[in-house]
Amino acid sequence: MRRLALMLLMSLSFFSAAQDKEAAVKKIYDYTLDSGRAYADLRVLCKQIGGRLSGSPAAAAAVEFTRQKMLDYGFDSVWLQEVMVPRWQRGQVCNVLVSSTKLGSMSLKSCALGGSIGTGPSGISAKVIEVKSLEQLNALGQAKIKGSIVFFNGAFDPKEISTFSAYGKAVGQRWGGAMEAAKFGAVAVLVRSMSSEVDDLPHTGSMGYDSATKKIPAASISTLAAEQLSKNLALDPALNVYLEMDCGSAGEVLSYNVVGELFGRKPDGPVIVVGGHLDSWDLGEGAHDDGTGCIQSIEAIRVLKAIGYKPNHRLRAVMFMNEENGLRGGKKYAELAQMNNEKHRFALESDRGGFTPRGFSFDVRNATEMAQFNGMRQFFSPYGADWFTLGGGGSDIAPLKANGTICLGFVPDSQRYFKYHHAASDTFEAVDSRELSLGAAAMAAMIYLLDQL
Amino acid sequence: MRRLALMLLMSLSFFSAAQDKEAAVKKIYDYTLDSGRAYADLRVLCKQIGGRLSGSPAAAAAVEFTRQKMLDYGFDSVWLQEVMVPRWQRGQVCNVLVSSTKLGSMSLKSCALGGSIGTGPSGISAKVIEVKSLEQLNALGQAKIKGSIVFFNGAFDPKEISTFSAYGKAVGQRWGGAMEAAKFGAVAVLVRSMSSEVDDLPHTGSMGYDSATKKIPAASISTLAAEQLSKNLALDPALNVYLEMDCGSAGEVLSYNVVGELFGRKPDGPVIVVGGHLDSWDLGEGAHDDGTGCIQSIEAIRVLKAIGYKPNHRLRAVMFMNEENGLRGGKKYAELAQMNNEKHRFALESDRGGFTPRGFSFDVRNATEMAQFNGMRQFFSPYGADWFTLGGGGSDIAPLKANGTICLGFVPDSQRYFKYHHAASDTFEAVDSRELSLGAAAMAAMIYLLDQL
Repeated sequence: MRRLALMLLMSLSFFSAAQDKEAAVKKIYDYTLDSGRAYADLRVLCKQIGGRLSGSPAAAAAVEFTRQKMLDYGFDSVWLQEVMVPRWQRGQVCNVLVSSTKLGSMSLKSCALGGSIGTGPSGISAKVIEVKSLEQLNALGQAKIKGSIVFFNGAFDPKEISTFSAYGKAVGQRWGGAMEAAKFGAVAVLVRSMSSEVDDLPHTGSMGYDSATKKIPAASISTLAAEQLSKNLALDPALNVYLEMDCGSAGEVLSYNVVGELFGRKPDGPVIVVGGHLDSWDLGEGAHDDGTGCIQSIEAIRVLKAIGYKPNHRLRAVMFMNEENGLRGGKKYAELAQMNNEKHRFALESDRGGFTPRGFSFDVRNATEMAQFNGMRQFFSPYGADWFTLGGGGSDIAPLKANGTICLGFVPDSQRYFKYHHAASDTFEAVDSRELSLGAAAMAAMIYLLDQL
Repeated sequence: MRRLALMLLMSLSFFSAAQDKEAAVKKIYDYTLDSGRAYADLRVLCKQIGGRLSGSPAAAAAVEFTRQKMLDYGFDSVWLQEVMVPRWQRGQVCNVLVSSTKLGSMSLKSCALGGSIGTGPSGISAKVIEVKSLEQLNALGQAKIKGSIVFFNGAFDPKEISTFSAYGKAVGQRWGGAMEAAKFGAVAVLVRSMSSEVDDLPHTGSMGYDSATKKIPAASISTLAAEQLSKNLALDPALNVYLEMDCGSAGEVLSYNVVGELFGRKPDGPVIVVGGHLDSWDLGEGAHDDGTGCIQSIEAIRVLKAIGYKPNHRLRAVMFMNEENGLRGGKKYAELAQMNNEKHRFALESDRGGFTPRGFSFDVRNATEMAQFNGMRQFFSPYGADWFTLGGGGSDIAPLKANGTICLGFVPDSQRYFKYHHAASDTFEAVDSRELSLGAAAMAAMIYLLDQL
């Protein structure tokens, strides 16, 4: 009988705890949807500051804007973390001109890939070899490639339901294309834009060099331009491309991560981090990538404070600098956390756009490790955000894993992300106010539930 | 032993059947995503035909376009069903002018509500009484209202997660506002736009009159205009509004439902219907409401044919006419089905926009009746479309219920719908190609699974 009574008591207290959590989550959603600030704040970040490549004046303005926002919202402590970041500059010129004795001349919509060297003012002129993948490049070998411009035309696979999977399969060309092509003597590369759409917007993004191989210029062309170039090559394999770009590296610059904290029960207690990256590519306004993630992170902490929640852990919103072309901010944050002996229990990243929430990914090894989180799912079901999957948390928080932090990723619907990603169309107008707010609410609810674990 | 063997055999055949279905669903998705026509077809419907109010030349063009499309795609039979529809015309003028001796004059962004009478060329000028609901109106009574313009300013509740719930709670003002206000002697009504956003777009939509009450004009004003008018009324309750509209009814016109069929195993066998409504409001291009539903319905049947599927049931895509202001097409379709003694087993409607799929609603009474569908859920999980809920199928297929048809609704994500719904912004550009195709694939998969039941 005593055991039964105890069990009854335990299960009652379980239900009561579950009801309390359900009510708290509802309070978080209600407040965020009714009194949200995310959309207004994102408007300022996008429209008044805009694209903010690491090391640029706009990136510095974004540091100041988010620092001031967290102070205005009454976070208990707000500070900057110094971090040296690479500064790459797009320059003024990116011309890709196709000329063919058979087909005439045409200009392709293009942009330099981030990190690329320029061509010099006289440009590069060469015949073009089209490949669909790094594997095809390797199969061709030096004899076919030497002296040419390699055109990587691997498209997104539309059959992938997650556009991140399609991106993952295609992006190797963009990152590794120039270094691999250079090994075979290519003089430059053109890369089909990493986009789920066929349109005329070039998408930028980072590319790499290795120290052992000659650096060659790399440009992205729109998916429509890629389809056109491919057709023209089929009709005239001897056509010529002239590439001119004046982009290049401008050394390193001092920049900052921005950190805002709500105090927990103990000043030196464990930390839960929520963050996004503050830098962005320069063609658009860095709205979905990753203005939304930054603003949602601030909003999530603001909401918890505004509803009067007293956290157990220290709760931090972190604006990571330099995710796009160096990950210096994420690495620095983890380095300082270790140096200062801060225990980071959980970290949540939002860097997949400000779209309608679907759920969360958990960077754990297996279902057993996942089990501790399964009880949370029910709280997200009424809000359509209860996909709980195994998967990465995000690249800025990943360096924390080495010290035992469990990383989570916020997972919004992926369908529209790569239409805007790294392109001029990634603007405030591409963000829906309700989708953005629901994301902030889901993140706030997750932080609350993690804080209760 | 024999029993065990039998059970093993049965469970093997169950697994094999499940695997076959899983493979068929994957084939449907792959084909739709890789070789889809929906986005291109929607472009024509929106950009070349555009808004298509019942009885308009554009509605007639849409009938011919979708009829021809289904013929081009090789449907086994395509035909029209005659249906008389009301024709309402917006006219050229809708002016809402606010004048206040204290605050000066301003013009509000407005549009006539569908079905409203006009004001006559001299317009209507009166003081304004603001209410938030029909209940508030009733509480005020005749003494306060007689001779006034009633301003219904009930906003969407942003805390409702489904925007359809917010719409459902607010839309009574639009439909019933004029007839209820007229009972108390109001001379006209202004209704806050049924929108989840605060912006300057007026949203139209149907309103009603009853035969016992005087007809008074009804206009919609943008949500931003509604907030402004409310502020101004607080500062100057004596302000005056002048309303002028030249809209009005133009009798009835012959129009059509468009039906395309893939033959089933028997020419007089049971039918499964999938459909949307072909008419739309006139301010935008009728993209999400409901061009997407029509085009997805054609695409779903086209895809099943293209992958070589041989249906058990007769499969029909139906373009219903006159959903927006009369539901004549849906009623006519059910009437003819009964007259021709056609057994309609299932009907699926898509009229919630072309957004990323979430699942389906089933118009059944309880969990027991729902049980027959639960086994389907697993097939939608890999595609993120496995919300199965009890709920309405849609207003065009609802008349089939009387003859025992089980009705289903396609449920896309609801967050962005009411930003575009009935407004000038409901254009092709508001539709995402992947979201649209995924919807068509989900619908095709559902028809396939229903056909296998």
